[in-house]
Amino acid sequence: MDLIKEIHQFLKTEIDQMNESILNSLSATEELVSLVGNYIAKSGGKRIRPILTLLSAKMFGSTNENSIKLASAVEFIHMATLLHDDVVDGSKMRRFLPTANVIWGSKASILVGDFLFSQSFKLIVDTKSIDSMVVLSNASAIIAEGEVAQLASLEQHRIITENEYLRINNAKTAELFGAACEVGGLIAGKPSKYSKALRDFGMNLGNIFQIVDDLLDYFSEAKTTGKNIGDDFAEGKVTLPIIFLAKKLSSEDQSKLITLIVAPTRSADDFLWVTDLMVKFNIKDEILAYIQRFKISANKALAIIDIENQCKEHLRSLIDFAANRSY
Amino acid sequence: MDLIKEIHQFLKTEIDQMNESILNSLSATEELVSLVGNYIAKSGGKRIRPILTLLSAKMFGSTNENSIKLASAVEFIHMATLLHDDVVDGSKMRRFLPTANVIWGSKASILVGDFLFSQSFKLIVDTKSIDSMVVLSNASAIIAEGEVAQLASLEQHRIITENEYLRINNAKTAELFGAACEVGGLIAGKPSKYSKALRDFGMNLGNIFQIVDDLLDYFSEAKTTGKNIGDDFAEGKVTLPIIFLAKKLSSEDQSKLITLIVAPTRSADDFLWVTDLMVKFNIKDEILAYIQRFKISANKALAIIDIENQCKEHLRSLIDFAANRSY
Repeated sequence: MDLIKEIHQFLKTEIDQMNESILNSLSATEELVSLVGNYIAKSGGKRIRPILTLLSAKMFGSTNENSIKLASAVEFIHMATLLHDDVVDGSKMRRFLPTANVIWGSKASILVGDFLFSQSFKLIVDTKSIDSMVVLSNASAIIAEGEVAQLASLEQHRIITENEYLRINNAKTAELFGAACEVGGLIAGKPSKYSKALRDFGMNLGNIFQIVDDLLDYFSEAKTTGKNIGDDFAEGKVTLPIIFLAKKLSSEDQSKLITLIVAPTRSADDFLWVTDLMVKFNIKDEILAYIQRFKISANKALAIIDIENQCKEHLRSLIDFAANRSY
Repeated sequence: MDLIKEIHQFLKTEIDQMNESILNSLSATEELVSLVGNYIAKSGGKRIRPILTLLSAKMFGSTNENSIKLASAVEFIHMATLLHDDVVDGSKMRRFLPTANVIWGSKASILVGDFLFSQSFKLIVDTKSIDSMVVLSNASAIIAEGEVAQLASLEQHRIITENEYLRINNAKTAELFGAACEVGGLIAGKPSKYSKALRDFGMNLGNIFQIVDDLLDYFSEAKTTGKNIGDDFAEGKVTLPIIFLAKKLSSEDQSKLITLIVAPTRSADDFLWVTDLMVKFNIKDEILAYIQRFKISANKALAIIDIENQCKEHLRSLIDFAANRSY
């Protein structure tokens, strides 16, 4: 049985409550808010971030109203980011469906994104947990800064370094994974040793998740991921596969690659040229080896928590899931 | 002496501290965040919303670190809204300067807007005032919903009713004026009788402010407001001057006006035709008479607070200032 389905089954009560809380927050008086909000909520896929909050809280006992609210808030932050990202990236397809900006236009995506963000703020405030508010307001600021960093790097039209790439990933993806886990621990009222370990676990898991995402953009098919493959390359977005490939190329091919990346547009043939070279130089294997360090750190972080139960087991399984996923 | 300058002088210590707090929040590691953020902060004009927070708090005694934080947060929410609005409206000029989206592009405006919004969240959380968090998170959601309502009404290409217009104004403008005043009262630790009265005052002031703003878009010159005149009309945005004018017209001219509003674009000649008719039918005087009701309500709300001092006097003066301003 697929791990995500198994976890959804395990957390059925909590996820049902969370979905109800999300739908409730979306029942705004404005029809366009409900339309776009429900669309992005329903096409929401794995709900991996709120699952992290729920598992992290439940690991220390039972979940309650506040952990459900925080899980919903985490998902709202993610949904708002998706809406704005798709506008900024000009994405046309996500999880087998046209993006909201294709259906309702960029303006609706910008404003409904703002609404979702404010709903997350409302839900977090509702818990009255100042610690959780600090973590999630910080996370929101770091995510926004990461998105700006990515935009700035894109506009520089160059091959960014591995460190720059990791810094952007930490901000735009790993931070919310880390915060999602951390607030799960905080709302369970556990000492900061545990919530910090959960944060560390989540940050490493988020890094694996994003690196594999970037890999899949070169090495999968639209029929498994439900989004357009080659989008990153088409946009000139430099991710780890390109950074690693550039190091392997002859100076002639390296120049050609840089010329391609800095050009205003790239063709399907250019994409084929790049992916053929990635196959030739085993870039996929190199990246799968590279993520081992994050797997080890994620496992180490979990080991700090001296509890063994089904929740922790599920969190641990997510490490391999994130590393091996093909969608 | 101009009232706003006088209030800025009166609140000099507080405004200096607020500007420092704003600059501090903008010193992000990402250069593009600082660039866009500082640009919007410096072109920020009258700072009328944070002034409301500071006067409302100071009326009950002295301001402190937390009232400064809330004032900064209110200004950040406003700045974020400006950045996103200018993208959604496609505005090119604001307060004598090109808009941020003209200089850095829509993508930067969207993402830096998100960053400013998250900074406001951080500052509010920093005060640990749950009451203020509830008020400002609600306000953020209502503002976003109001922006969506305005977009939806625009896409319906019709002349909205006076009630629809007021509902949009209440959400997108008056709500933040109301919340700015309310949190000033809350952070001063006064009973809810006072903070509710301040909210009521702010909501009415915000309505006056927005109605006059919409009037100035037909009856002023770029050299006084620093933005393009006729923008609302050019976008097909229906505001009170159009709603009032439509009621006055012969059925033939009314049909012509509706045809103009629903058309994809409107020319400079169309704008002249409309403003000539507005002069003919004294629309300006009708609107100035219309806002009397908000002036009376704003004064009544202030009268509930049994304090007389310079702060209250300044708040009271802002009612006439908002009604009579030409910029």
